[in-house]
Order: sequence, then C-alpha cells, then structure tokens
Amino acid sequence: MNEAGFISALRALATHPAARGLADDCAVLDLGGEALVLTHDAMAEGVHYLPGQDPADVAWKLVATNLSDLAAKGAKPLGVLLGYMFGADDARFLAGLEEALAAFHVPLLGGDTISGTGAQVLGLTALGRATHRPVPSRAGAQPGDCLYLTGPVGGAMMGCEAMQAGTGEDSTAYRRPRALLAEGRALAPVAHAMMDVSDGLLLDSWRMAQASGVTVAIHSAMVPLAAPEARRADALRWGDDYQLLLAAPEGIAPPVPLYPVGRILPRGASPLVLDGAAMTDPAGLGYQHAGRP
Amino acid sequence: MNEAGFISALRALATHPAARGLADDCAVLDLGGEALVLTHDAMAEGVHYLPGQDPADVAWKLVATNLSDLAAKGAKPLGVLLGYMFGADDARFLAGLEEALAAFHVPLLGGDTISGTGAQVLGLTALGRATHRPVPSRAGAQPGDCLYLTGPVGGAMMGCEAMQAGTGEDSTAYRRPRALLAEGRALAPVAHAMMDVSDGLLLDSWRMAQASGVTVAIHSAMVPLAAPEARRADALRWGDDYQLLLAAPEGIAPPVPLYPVGRILPRGASPLVLDGAAMTDPAGLGYQHAGRP
Repeated sequence: MNEAGFISALRALATHPAARGLADDCAVLDLGGEALVLTHDAMAEGVHYLPGQDPADVAWKLVATNLSDLAAKGAKPLGVLLGYMFGADDARFLAGLEEALAAFHVPLLGGDTISGTGAQVLGLTALGRATHRPVPSRAGAQPGDCLYLTGPVGGAMMGCEAMQAGTGEDSTAYRRPRALLAEGRALAPVAHAMMDVSDGLLLDSWRMAQASGVTVAIHSAMVPLAAPEARRADALRWGDDYQLLLAAPEGIAPPVPLYPVGRILPRGASPLVLDGAAMTDPAGLGYQHAGRP
Repeated sequence: MNEAGFISALRALATHPAARGLADDCAVLDLGGEALVLTHDAMAEGVHYLPGQDPADVAWKLVATNLSDLAAKGAKPLGVLLGYMFGADDARFLAGLEEALAAFHVPLLGGDTISGTGAQVLGLTALGRATHRPVPSRAGAQPGDCLYLTGPVGGAMMGCEAMQAGTGEDSTAYRRPRALLAEGRALAPVAHAMMDVSDGLLLDSWRMAQASGVTVAIHSAMVPLAAPEARRADALRWGDDYQLLLAAPEGIAPPVPLYPVGRILPRGASPLVLDGAAMTDPAGLGYQHAGRP
C-alpha cells in the first residue's frame, strides 16, 4: 500500500459527515447548538523543519498553521492540545509556544509529552467554534464567483531564502506566519468557499476547483506579491504565506481588504486555467506532500 | 531544561480552567451547554511499542488508550483525529484502526499523514461529550470513600510476557486493551474521583491521592488478579490493563461490578499506604514515563 492508497483508504473510513471526507481544512462537528471546528497537523524534523532551526520558530509555526486552518473556516479558537516529543532545546520550544499562544489568544488545554529515539515529531490539535453557519468549505465555489486573496504571496519564500542564505535579511514572514483569524471570521458570511493557502496559490486553487466541481481561472498579473516581480511565477507556487483564498460573489462589500485574482467558471476541461492556459497536471503548481489532499 | 522542568513549565502555561492544570486524564471544556472532553496521546516506536510489533495492534492501542481516558471521565466519544507517520506496514495499521473504530463505535473525523526520517511517531486526539456533570476528575476523593477497581489487573502483564516469550499463549489483554466506556458512563454519577489505570494500580492510586490531597490505603489481597498469585506484587505495579479506578462512598449500589481494594483516609504522612506501610516514593510503584503526571 503506497501513501496515496493509504490516504484514500483512510477517506473511505471517514464516513461521518463531520469528517468532510478528509478533504477540507477541518472537521466540522455539530454539538449542543454549536459547530465545533477541529484540525490536527503533524510536523517532522528533517521534513517540515530543519534540525538546526530555532525550536521557538517551530513551535510558532505548529500553532499558526493549525490556527490558519481554523481561520479558513471562520472559527474562533477554543484551545489546542500538543503532542510534544522532547528535542534539542525544549526551553526554546516552550518560549515560542508561549509567544504563539499569547499572540493568537488561544489556551493550551492538554496533550502529551514523550521521549523518542529518532528525529523529533510534533503534533498539534486545534479546536474552535464556528462563528458563521454554514461553515465554509472548499467545495462551495460557484460559476460567476470572483476568486479573492486576502494579501500578497511570496513573502514566506523570500524569508526562507534569506534565512537559508544567512544574509541577515528579514525572514519573519517565513518563520512566524500569521493565522488570519479575524479576517476569516469576517469573510465566512460572504464566502461561498474558503481555504488557506499553505501549499501554493496555484495548487490550492486547483484543490478548491476540484472540491467545487468548477474551473478556477487565475490572472497572474493581478496576484499581489511580497516578492520581486521577477519571482512572480515562483511566488504563485510557494506556500507558507497562509493567506486566505475565497470564492465569493463579485461586487460584495469586502469586510476586510481583498484582492481579486481570478474568476470561477463552469467546469471545463481542466480545474485550473492560468492566464488563459489550461493546466492539466497539479505537479509543479505547488508543494505537494503526503497527507495534504 | 530537563523533562520534569518542561512539564511543569507547560503546566504553568495551561492556566485555562478547561486544562485542569494538565493534571487530569482529559481537558474538560464547556461549550454550548455541553462539556467537551478532550485528550491527546502520542506513541513512539522503540519507546511505546516495538519495531516488530503488529501495526494493527499498535493502531488498536492508540485508539483504546485515548478512549480509556474518555471512559475515565464518563464521556461518550464523538470522534478521533489521527496524526499518522508512514511506517513499515501501513495496510496493517489501517486494518487495526478500522477494527478499533468499529469496536468502540467512534468515527474518524480528521488528522494528518506525514513522512518522517526516523522512528515512527503516532498521535491521536479523542473528543467526547460528558454524560454527567460535574465531570469526574482525579481530585475529588474524600476521606471515608471506598477505593474501587472495575476489574482485575495483571492481564496485560501476562499477555506482554507471553508475546515476548513467543509461547503462543493468549496475549490479547496486552495487544487489544478495552476502553471501559459503558462502565465509565455508568460510574460517573457515583464517583467522587475517577481515572484509568494505565501505569500501574499503585502509581495511579498515588496520583489520585496527590490530586485529591488525601491518603489512599490499599489492601493488596483484595485486588482482583488476572495473573498467578505469585505475581501479585508485579501486577499491582504493571499498567496497560485500563481498568477504571474510582473513589466513591461506601455502600453505593454499584451500577457495574466493582471490586473494593482500599479506603480513602485523611491526608497522612504519605499519599499511599500499602497493607499498612506508608509508601514515601513513587519510584517502583509503576511505569513512569515522560508526560504522564
């Protein structure tokens, strides 16, 4: 059984409607008149972060990426549970964890700490309360909608490259991403579909198109950049900026600044059209790793 | 910073009342008129299970141990989120996961799958809905209460030894523990304090005594065994049976079979008295590992 086979078998197992077929950013579970929004991400040393990386940044990213999934559903965080494996500098991890929890106003509710024998692996579960029903999914984009982005992409790419080059240039955008929680809550009532851009604008747009059964047409020149113009093509394929991507009717009064970057079309031959050219293969559109549908 | 220092710093961070000071089996969060019960456990290959162990048994145990924490709070499971790192035989893991989810009637709601570079590390988050309020904690034992156990201990020890010896004797009790969900729900209304015995009866009793500010007196001859009499002392110190341990008034009409094994006394010099002898050190009372308070 290969990884793709495992994931599709796991999806076949997740028949409860709250699981959303394991194809959305979060699970959404009705409970006591509320909708509970749940997500869990794992990160492995040597795969999702480098052995030499500051554990405070790793802790921040673990929290921010999970909260970004809640943001994409318009959820208000209720808390997190941490699965922590002891590593090289636990005090630095703790410092970053404390900073992130304070910055995003989210309590640590529980978890587990373990010793392991190999590379460090970390897990975080975040839960939140939906502030708008229905809770936006990736699947609601409708032909005629506009495709919007909450801000520029490419900043994390530039930050990562600066960090790797050791030039001393600012790498904050890569090391300390923001979960756009307030933006997500403001946008949930107007979005037909919403997700966070974690793996690249083009790849995540492809996924929204697939989930919604539509074609997404992106006009690349309209995409706001936090990178030099010469890097536009790369910035469209780089993840880690955690902007929100949404399909919403044209002409809405945007509750937060929004950048129109494309349109939703009836499903054509391909889920994604970039500057008029049909993309037929998700390979090369972004960062693909195991477990991200 | 050593592991104990890390855990106490983590506790200092977890000030939200739902976290219960990271000193209970679960977090308990009020939401929409319900009490949400949350737990997360992590397991590492080479530490919590052996590289050669059947991944189906590992999956079962990952589910059962988390659900046992819910059982100890009288919670009805709502679902689980899995943090899965690909391993030696993913198909066998999936088979065990499916069996466990079906056996305990709990849906898979979400999670993440990753590739790692070293030994496999797994995480599972379980959430449930409290069926009785207040939700029992470890901290409610009162002098005069009786200490009860839901069933025998030592079965997992015998099963583990049989498996390691390869004698072909039944190792089910070790490989496939049961989460006593129905028993926990039945007992929550009568328990002053409740927890599951995961690390050994003596050590877990010590912890209940510490949390409750009482002394627990155990009469070892009264403890029901699923092991030969000659192994009684070991069985009292072995975990993995996942029986429920509770303090409740003497003379209750037990809703499920209960075995009285001791009494709750006002706090004396030591949290635990075994057959009249005060135990002054938790070392040697059970299985102590990082992260288990």
